[in-house]
Formats: sequence, C-alpha cells, structure tokens
Amino acid sequence: MALQAEGKGLERKEGDQIAYERLTALGKKLVEEIKAGKNPEFETLVRSRSNIVFDDQDFLRLGDKKEKRHFLNLAQAKTFMQTIAVANKTKKFIEEGLHTSIRGLYYQLKYTLGEDLDENLFEEQSESNALIEDLEAALGVKREDLHLTTDRKGVLAGPIKIRDRFGGEEIIIDGTKQGRSGWMIPSDVDNGMEIIEVDANYVLVVEKDALWQRLNEDRFWAKEKAILITPKGQSSRGTRRLLRKLADMGLPIYVFTDCDAWGWYIYWTLKTGSINLAYLGKDFAVPEAKFIGVTMSDIEKYDFLKKLTIKAKDIDVKRAKEMKEYPWIKRHPEWVRELDMVIKTRKKLEQDALQGPRLTFVGDYVREKIANEEFLP
Amino acid sequence: MALQAEGKGLERKEGDQIAYERLTALGKKLVEEIKAGKNPEFETLVRSRSNIVFDDQDFLRLGDKKEKRHFLNLAQAKTFMQTIAVANKTKKFIEEGLHTSIRGLYYQLKYTLGEDLDENLFEEQSESNALIEDLEAALGVKREDLHLTTDRKGVLAGPIKIRDRFGGEEIIIDGTKQGRSGWMIPSDVDNGMEIIEVDANYVLVVEKDALWQRLNEDRFWAKEKAILITPKGQSSRGTRRLLRKLADMGLPIYVFTDCDAWGWYIYWTLKTGSINLAYLGKDFAVPEAKFIGVTMSDIEKYDFLKKLTIKAKDIDVKRAKEMKEYPWIKRHPEWVRELDMVIKTRKKLEQDALQGPRLTFVGDYVREKIANEEFLP
Repeated sequence: MALQAEGKGLERKEGDQIAYERLTALGKKLVEEIKAGKNPEFETLVRSRSNIVFDDQDFLRLGDKKEKRHFLNLAQAKTFMQTIAVANKTKKFIEEGLHTSIRGLYYQLKYTLGEDLDENLFEEQSESNALIEDLEAALGVKREDLHLTTDRKGVLAGPIKIRDRFGGEEIIIDGTKQGRSGWMIPSDVDNGMEIIEVDANYVLVVEKDALWQRLNEDRFWAKEKAILITPKGQSSRGTRRLLRKLADMGLPIYVFTDCDAWGWYIYWTLKTGSINLAYLGKDFAVPEAKFIGVTMSDIEKYDFLKKLTIKAKDIDVKRAKEMKEYPWIKRHPEWVRELDMVIKTRKKLEQDALQGPRLTFVGDYVREKIANEEFLP
Repeated sequence: MALQAEGKGLERKEGDQIAYERLTALGKKLVEEIKAGKNPEFETLVRSRSNIVFDDQDFLRLGDKKEKRHFLNLAQAKTFMQTIAVANKTKKFIEEGLHTSIRGLYYQLKYTLGEDLDENLFEEQSESNALIEDLEAALGVKREDLHLTTDRKGVLAGPIKIRDRFGGEEIIIDGTKQGRSGWMIPSDVDNGMEIIEVDANYVLVVEKDALWQRLNEDRFWAKEKAILITPKGQSSRGTRRLLRKLADMGLPIYVFTDCDAWGWYIYWTLKTGSINLAYLGKDFAVPEAKFIGVTMSDIEKYDFLKKLTIKAKDIDVKRAKEMKEYPWIKRHPEWVRELDMVIKTRKKLEQDALQGPRLTFVGDYVREKIANEEFLP
C-alpha cells in the first residue's frame, strides 16, 4: 500500500522552535518573579515510580503529579540553579543552530560556571542527565528538540523516502538504494527530517544486525514491500521515535527477536516503553506493535529447532519470572504461557538458529508468520 | 588532492573467488591423500604468541611457524574434522552467493552434523571461531572472503565515492550526500566494493560518534577536504580494512581519541594491530597512521583544559604502565612521556572536553594540529 506521507507541503513548526519558545517563556517567567520580589519557581512532572501510569492507553507514561523547585530554598537552590543553567545552554545551542551530546553540554557547563564561581556546579555527568529529563518533562519537549544528540544504532532499508535538511543542504534518502550497509537511523528523526514517501505493507523490526544483513542480502524488503529495521538490540531513541512515526502512518509494526526474556523485553520496551523512560510517553512507544517470534511454541512447530535450543541460565529464568509480574505483560495469557515455558523447560533459542537448515529460511519463517497472522499481542 | 582510485576498469579477481579456489584445492588435496592411502593433513600457521612477529614492518603479524593436523590421530581427529566442516560450509556459502555471521555458520554446522552423527560436533561457538582463524591463516584469506559477516560499527562522510555491487544492483555511495547519518561502513569493503573517486587531503579518524556528529554538523569534511570516520571506539574489521585501503591510495591517516590509555590503545590497535589479531597481518594494519591528540601535553598548551580533566582511576594507571612495556610503543620516547604523565599526574581527559569553550572548538583544535604537523608517531 502506498501511504500518505507526513507534512504534505504544509509548514509544520519544528520541535526545536517550540522548545525555544518554551525555554524563552520559562526565562521570562523567572525574571518577572524576581522583579516582583517573588521566590523564583520551576515546576516539572514527578518522574518517580509513584507518578508512572499504565492504563488503557497501553503505554507507560507520567501522571499529573507535579514537583516545584524554588531558588530561595536551601535544599533546592543548587538543583534550581543547575536546571536553569541547562535550560540556558540548550537555548543557546538552538540559537547557534548547533548540536552536541549530553557529555558536550556537561563540559560547557563545567567550563562556564567553573570560571565564574571558581567551583564546579556539576561534578558528575549523572547530575546533568537527571536535569535534562526534568526539563523534557517540564517543557513537554524531547531532548532532541533541545539540540542534544543521543546514541544512534538502528539501521533501515526498504521502500521509503526520507528528506534530510542538514548543514544547509537537502538530501533525499532512498531506502531502496542503501546497498549492503543500509541507512543509519540518526539521533533526531524530527527536526529537519520528513518521511516523504512510503510504499510498504509493513515494518519488520529484527533484533540482531546479523539477521538484518541476512534479510537485506535476500532483498526481503523488496520482495515483501517491507521496511526492514534492526535496532541492534534495545532500540535507540531515534529508532523508537521513527517506529512511532511509521505506526502513525498506519503501517503495521512486526517485531522479531531471540526467544528469551531479553529478546522479548526488547519487544516490550519498544511497545509500551519502560519504567525508566516513562517520561517519554507516547512519542516513543508503539503499543500497536505485534510479536512474530521467535516463540517457545515455535520449537514444537519446527522440528529442526529442537536440537538448536540453548540451555537457559538461572538469570534467564529469573528475568522471565520478573517479566511475568509486569501488569502490561501478565494480562496477556499468551505471553504468560511463553514465559512459563522458559521457566519450566529452561531452554531458549536464538533467531540465528533459523538459519540451521538453510540461510534463506529466516525470510520464509517471517513470511509464513505474517501470512498466517500468527502473532503474539 | 584528487587521488587515483583502485580498479580503474581492470577486472580484479574478488577475494571470495580466490578463497573458493583455495578451498577447492584443499578439498582435492585431502581426497587425493585418502585415495593414496595417506593420512589426510591440514597445515596452518601457528597463532600463539611464540609465532607473533613485530619487526621493521611496524605491525604485528604471524611468523612462518607451521602446525599440522592429521585425521588419523586420536588427539587431532575431532579438530581436523571440525576444520574441514567449516571449510565445506563456507565453500557452499560462496557457491550459493550468500553470506552469514559466524553464529549462522555455527547453527548450520550444528544442524548438519547433528543429523548425521546424533551428537553435536560443535557445542560452543568459541570452538568454531578458532577454526575460522585457522582457516584464514592456512588459506591466506579473510573471513569476509569466506562469506562470513562481522560486526560493523564505523561511520564515514566526506569527498569519496564508493561503488557497491550488492544483491544484483549497483549503487554509488557519495560520501558528501550522507546528511546527518553518514554512511555506515559495512563488514566487507572488498568483495563487490570499490573506491572509485577520492578528492581529499587526509582521513580523520575520531574515536567517538558524538564528536563525529559534531564535526559532521560543522561540515568539517567539506571545509578541510577530509574523509571523516568514526570507528565508535575500537575499530571493526571493516573499518580497519577501509583505512588500510585509503592509506594504500596515499592518504594520510590522522587519529583523534580520548586522552587516556584506552583511547590511545584504539590508535595503537588500528596502527600496528594487536596480539589477538596478529593473524590478520598487513591487510588490517595502518602503520602510517599518526596521532593528533588528545595528549597530556595539550593540558599544558590549552589553559582551559586544566579544569576539565578527570581523575585517572587505578585501572587507567595500570593500563598505562602495561602499554609502556609494549615493544612497538616503548621505542617512541614521545609516547613514553605521555604515558608517564598519566601515571604521575593521575589525570585523563576526554575529547568531548574540547567543546568546553564553544562547540565548534573541536574542529579548530584538529585544524591547528594538522596545520602545525603536531603529531605523535
């Protein structure tokens, strides 16, 4: 199916411009409070477990509980000042039109404030990380909108065209012309980037790069009209965000991982988010995603897999038991059954094992699952 | 400078075709030995420390010491058979024109031999890994020529064009049209792949992806006519091999890492190879590479860096002491001095710290070092 692309010539406001407006408004508010002789106040959403919600929206997100920080409060003054320093620096990055990592931000803060104060405002990077999350939650923006780059590791190929406006140039990325390498999914897939054309039936997410390379060599994406993505393990922010955008265009998202608690958790993190990343909310979750395998039930179905299983270690079994207790997993009897099979049989299986009989079997496996709509929720 | 590209229309023989001929010759030799009633023999180079040479060629390689394995020898029969099984499978992969990872190979071996023997020839993947290295050393080919894919993680941008013949199609990768992502350096940069045009003054290798993204945003590669590469930490085989090919075209290779024993070791591995990878020899080493920084001496030179240093941990100091003892390092007094400064001052410095005063300082630092030819050997 050919899908309508985003944008459609309409000028949408970029996320970094929205972030800039909100940073400016925050600054103005604080200045006004100071002028009015009030105690400057910064308000953000509480990011602790007590304020994490999982409901019928099917993804983890923050509730409404808010937290206030005041400048004229001995216990809060340092954090308050640090937060404002982060806000100030990221506003400058947007003005300059430049990006850096949180490590780059950390060194800028250390450099600037060290000079003025003869003492370091940030001793450890972990301090600035938490403040960035506060700012994301307070302003309702993503750190990518604050011109902070993050780790990138996903790869894509298939019938999709993406426009990338970057460094004063504009290029069109054609997902069908990426050769053996594929296109590396960047840190920020929003600002200056648009999906302009998609002619795919679905998106296939393959946990391991080695399997992605296998399917790319078979030109699986051309034969199936599929967008073939590997997150290379747990998905980066950029990969999760791109999957959200593809799901918003109506594309089914199918996920294919190892048959063990770790592989399955890659699926669940992508689908519902995770406790640590709940503050990201719906922009980074894909509750529509479906799981195509590998499942413990496959071992019964495909006879040759029996001798290619691996013994599950204690830690695998422990992790399976933990996963059974997550509310968003335990409400699915299919998943409880799968997890119970790991616990009972103490076996696991890698997606690589599907290459046992012949290298091209991997694609056939995926095709059959999709044709029969043999998914787990 | 515009450089002559490889190939030039001449039909060179691909590495996988050479590997195929050598695998076939090995098989024929064994069959003849069996027919003649002789004990089948497999000969490879010894890969242990006793056969590793470091001499005036400036890279680690294997010496001439050979090791023979016989089928009719109780202690060697299993390894002999395993080696032949690996040779047989990889020959099949080349015939099929398909690639897989060593994990995929492992499962094919487990599948095939399990059926015939009702016992698994390979219980652990580590067994098959060692056999692949034996085969590479014995046949004088790379595992990529045996159609085995490896981890890939390097990224490139800059004035270079590369032809990629893959999956029945041919694409031209233009390193100046890679937007924010860059081109992901694949596992195999030889078979079906050719550098067809280069218009660069040098190659800059940047340890961290975050710094690569910073320089890519500044279009450093356009301003400097440089090929900008990040290995993302230790270089993958594909990245090392591509750097070797670029050095063969006469391009200077400059390396830019963190200022600590780990960053510096990334440089040394790329330059001379390492003990574990000595069997790879000159195809994967770049002894011509030069080190531009970050150095401990930079802390004296750039005043602002003083307050951006980090305390070196015991393990950093221990590693620096070890590095001082490597013959290929200790013959360079400049490096001994740098390592001594780590040991004495117990400080280290990240390349990210160069963003302290302003984000674009990173590029200025590199430019100044190159303009002044301020390199370590």
